[in-house]
Amino acid sequence: MENLWTKNLRKIDPYVPGEQSSDRDIVKLNANENPYPPSPMAVQAIKNFDTGSLRFYPNANATPLKRAIADYYNVGVENVFLGNGSDDVIAVAFQALFNSDLPVVFPDLTYSFYPVWCSLFGIPYKNYPVGDDFRINAEDYEEKNGGVIIPNPNAPTSVGEGRDFVEKIMEYNADSVVIIDEAYVDFGGESSVELTKKYENLLVTGTFSKSRSLAGLRIGFAIGSERLVSVLEAVKNSYNSYTVDSISIAAGVASILDDDYFKQTCSKIIETRQYVTAQMRSMGFKVLDSKTNFIFATKDDASMKDMFEYLKTQKVYIRYFSLPRIENYVRITIGTDREMEIFLEKVKEYIG
Amino acid sequence: MENLWTKNLRKIDPYVPGEQSSDRDIVKLNANENPYPPSPMAVQAIKNFDTGSLRFYPNANATPLKRAIADYYNVGVENVFLGNGSDDVIAVAFQALFNSDLPVVFPDLTYSFYPVWCSLFGIPYKNYPVGDDFRINAEDYEEKNGGVIIPNPNAPTSVGEGRDFVEKIMEYNADSVVIIDEAYVDFGGESSVELTKKYENLLVTGTFSKSRSLAGLRIGFAIGSERLVSVLEAVKNSYNSYTVDSISIAAGVASILDDDYFKQTCSKIIETRQYVTAQMRSMGFKVLDSKTNFIFATKDDASMKDMFEYLKTQKVYIRYFSLPRIENYVRITIGTDREMEIFLEKVKEYIG
Repeated sequence: MENLWTKNLRKIDPYVPGEQSSDRDIVKLNANENPYPPSPMAVQAIKNFDTGSLRFYPNANATPLKRAIADYYNVGVENVFLGNGSDDVIAVAFQALFNSDLPVVFPDLTYSFYPVWCSLFGIPYKNYPVGDDFRINAEDYEEKNGGVIIPNPNAPTSVGEGRDFVEKIMEYNADSVVIIDEAYVDFGGESSVELTKKYENLLVTGTFSKSRSLAGLRIGFAIGSERLVSVLEAVKNSYNSYTVDSISIAAGVASILDDDYFKQTCSKIIETRQYVTAQMRSMGFKVLDSKTNFIFATKDDASMKDMFEYLKTQKVYIRYFSLPRIENYVRITIGTDREMEIFLEKVKEYIG
Repeated sequence: MENLWTKNLRKIDPYVPGEQSSDRDIVKLNANENPYPPSPMAVQAIKNFDTGSLRFYPNANATPLKRAIADYYNVGVENVFLGNGSDDVIAVAFQALFNSDLPVVFPDLTYSFYPVWCSLFGIPYKNYPVGDDFRINAEDYEEKNGGVIIPNPNAPTSVGEGRDFVEKIMEYNADSVVIIDEAYVDFGGESSVELTKKYENLLVTGTFSKSRSLAGLRIGFAIGSERLVSVLEAVKNSYNSYTVDSISIAAGVASILDDDYFKQTCSKIIETRQYVTAQMRSMGFKVLDSKTNFIFATKDDASMKDMFEYLKTQKVYIRYFSLPRIENYVRITIGTDREMEIFLEKVKEYIG
């Protein structure tokens, strides 16, 4: 018989994070991680960090990092919110901004955490299917809702929409808070940060985990009106006051300041992406036009699931989602040129 | 007129974190931070950290740190839960374990975040007043409830109860989950970790922020039955998979391994605490017997609020709570001997 105390335990299906491996030989193209190390300036900030100061709590407002981000995006410090990775930032935003009886709306093919957060916080939600070309139809979002969240560029599709698309979404949603999740925007997407000055109900989120090679340090941010940011701060300060640690603050600031390195590595990844896309198309794959650090691909006469499994035996890890509409697609993170040559070679082997 | 979108914003009174100052001259005895730097082994782990690996997400399960903690406390890896500071750990525990219509119960004088989390997550709660001697009365907790949380030692009172007290609480609460918050236990308290093997419904939480001088890195943990930990993991993995960053994992492991340094610094703080307690008593203060890295004190013929204000003008920061029952008490963190001599001198000046 079950004990009585167990009846108050939360029943929830745990989100299962992607595969990890400590095998150094693996070509790891399954987590959209950056193939290049963090900025040398960020590395110096870590090496020179005054470790004695770790006995103190971090700056509660993480002000140095907020200021660096504010300067970079040309907004005020009061327009910047920070969290323990953009998952933390978006989870706080769901709790802070989505308190309606109407459903929060987002595309059917998108970041798999959105429905998980809705379940966790008891928020109703609704999906609008993306088109057969995987484009998001702005008109779907005209319907009354309890909030909108759209990743732009979208994942796992890699497709990016322009600022005009976001403007349309904003016009349809004067009565809702709209979150544009820009985790992948630095690889060729069009940022909507500037629009946060025009629309007080627009929040744009970003991360240091992809384009800044700092996934290991957990830095996410949001930019929006002072009104929105103050509600995010109130919820965050009711949960955990110090989510960004002292070393992350220092490394994050240095990363922002090293803009040359940032631009170089992003450009290099875009260049490699173009090459891999062309190569795969020449092998008969359909590859969507990507604005991200990954590509989304299929091949009519081949099983992508089998290819994914085969590559795994060859120590090349890519991502396969066993989901309706995309059950014959794979998502491949863009690595170094050398990693992508190995990948392409193994794909050639597979399709024989 | 307010826009319609603002009606779905969360209305919440933000928790206001304690005062911070970047003034290096300040004697900072207001945040229960450790006066000694982190373990030299932890410092080495940070200096030698492979920064290139920061491009990867942290180990999703933070396994190396879980294993170090499990070995230290003689429990299994499956009995350890980790989070971004113990605030994050306890906030996850509230969401995961306190899902009853009955109120969660805790002392009236206690960690001020407990009612804040209850408000955030919509959990009903109820306080039991501590006695005039600031001891917690175990019998109060015999009443049916939706869960129990008790810090032991308690803050801001500094008073610690023995394991027999926790056993009583467990006997009364076979139908509830009980959390014992041991943030301060390493300064002379009696840990209940061993009891988690006997009681499947007992969770003990701890932090690296106080006794391990790593407040700046945000490492908290919980120890409990596999049943409880699996529910915590499910909620955490539905919120944010990677709450402990890669450098914190490495530094945390090293800190645990350097047990000599840990024991030395804790002993030194206890020694300084005994000295300061004796000195203050000889000046006519009532000082509670502390099992923590702070003391809780009052003086019948003096205003503690005024003393707090006076010390601030003298660049000595202590903590004053404008709360019923303790409006003439101050909480003083134990610093280095030198810091405490300055503090005592200024107190002498004040009571003059």
